[in-house]
Amino acid sequence: MTPEEWAKVPLGPHERLDDLMVRDRRLIQNEQEFCFSMDAVLLAHFPQGRGREQILELGTGTGVIPLLMADEAAHITAIELNPVMAELAVRNVRLNGLAENIQVLAGDYREIEKLIPRESFDLVVANPPYRPLGKGKGSALTGVARARHEVTATLEDVCRAARFALRFGGRFALIHLPERLAEIFSCLQKYQLEPKRLRLVADRPGSRPRLALIEARQGGRSGLAVEPALFVREATGEYTRELLEIYGMEGAHD
Amino acid sequence: MTPEEWAKVPLGPHERLDDLMVRDRRLIQNEQEFCFSMDAVLLAHFPQGRGREQILELGTGTGVIPLLMADEAAHITAIELNPVMAELAVRNVRLNGLAENIQVLAGDYREIEKLIPRESFDLVVANPPYRPLGKGKGSALTGVARARHEVTATLEDVCRAARFALRFGGRFALIHLPERLAEIFSCLQKYQLEPKRLRLVADRPGSRPRLALIEARQGGRSGLAVEPALFVREATGEYTRELLEIYGMEGAHD
Repeated sequence: MTPEEWAKVPLGPHERLDDLMVRDRRLIQNEQEFCFSMDAVLLAHFPQGRGREQILELGTGTGVIPLLMADEAAHITAIELNPVMAELAVRNVRLNGLAENIQVLAGDYREIEKLIPRESFDLVVANPPYRPLGKGKGSALTGVARARHEVTATLEDVCRAARFALRFGGRFALIHLPERLAEIFSCLQKYQLEPKRLRLVADRPGSRPRLALIEARQGGRSGLAVEPALFVREATGEYTRELLEIYGMEGAHD
Repeated sequence: MTPEEWAKVPLGPHERLDDLMVRDRRLIQNEQEFCFSMDAVLLAHFPQGRGREQILELGTGTGVIPLLMADEAAHITAIELNPVMAELAVRNVRLNGLAENIQVLAGDYREIEKLIPRESFDLVVANPPYRPLGKGKGSALTGVARARHEVTATLEDVCRAARFALRFGGRFALIHLPERLAEIFSCLQKYQLEPKRLRLVADRPGSRPRLALIEARQGGRSGLAVEPALFVREATGEYTRELLEIYGMEGAHD
């Protein structure tokens, strides 16, 4: 759609339209539900290209990750539990003309057996709730609480679903909190998902990492490649070239 | 001892005397065995001060880590399997006037039950062999091969020994390769040693981390503090202020 056509898209209460800065793709978000953040953008760019793959996302929210990954994929299936969000994801896929590339499934990945065939995907991605229920500050908004806390799905639920979905040798990429890294590695290994890549994300050199990007391989041998940290800002406070490139900013190509 | 007295210390074949840059402490090393490197210095400075503790080192080599940690400890026990190295460690302790602070035990920590009482230490430190036997390039020198490869002790042996030695709530600090992080976390957890701190060491910002400093707590709750990476050099190639401070260089206090 052209910018003029996008401007005519009807928006419901609490909805807003954001530019994804990829091929004029845009995203309707609901401000009373969970809006996508940098985490989603970093995760969408983390898996290394392996040609056109069958991709599954566990917990897609607005559908932002499939919209960002669609060009690299053979096909993306995106599961979303929250019916308000699943409907929004479907609208976002249609409005961006990607209905042939992305299928949104409204359902619960704790019962993944009812949603998809076993071991049928090359790559699973997930930006799961970060905090166990009862930890961290809560939120009055149900959608935000679900997205931030393990109200509806735990780390174990996500790993189990990824294991069910992946073919032998397939990869599981997720973004999570560094403070849960030991738990995450342990849970991945429990489901025969061997951690193979780790990239920590810090605000700037000298900062504690705030996020961890992890890729595991189903049935992989042990051996973890810890990559250089991704810094959001230079020591001077400006965004790093790498972050701008990930966001597709023109400025990165100066 | 004064520098003049140190100059008179008799050295055997292949031995050399190195300055530890801490209170005039010096260290005899045998160039045909394993000589200490930056890893040992980084590990000695990694555990956070908790007052004067009972410390155990698993595999002390020349005794460099106890010499660097002696001022912070109530007492240090250092185990060494290689009899040439154990004798060298005893000489190094005596020459530095630390015989009351550091006890070297010649023995095999795979049979730690025969060497020390159970659950009697506050802190265990280890700079264990990094590579499984049969991986990485070998070495013609037996002492070096033992120190670099898991010829005589595996990751599991080290974790088991640490678990045996530590009181409830005691800490285990080790330095190892980032590529083995998933294995290390898994092995620590198997022995009820919960990873609590992680610090990656990289040559400079933008480099892949080469080393990982890890601290686990016996019986600890899950939750890992991933600290800012330690950089050896600035982007300009100069040593970082933090590294110089760890080495006790005067230049760091400019």
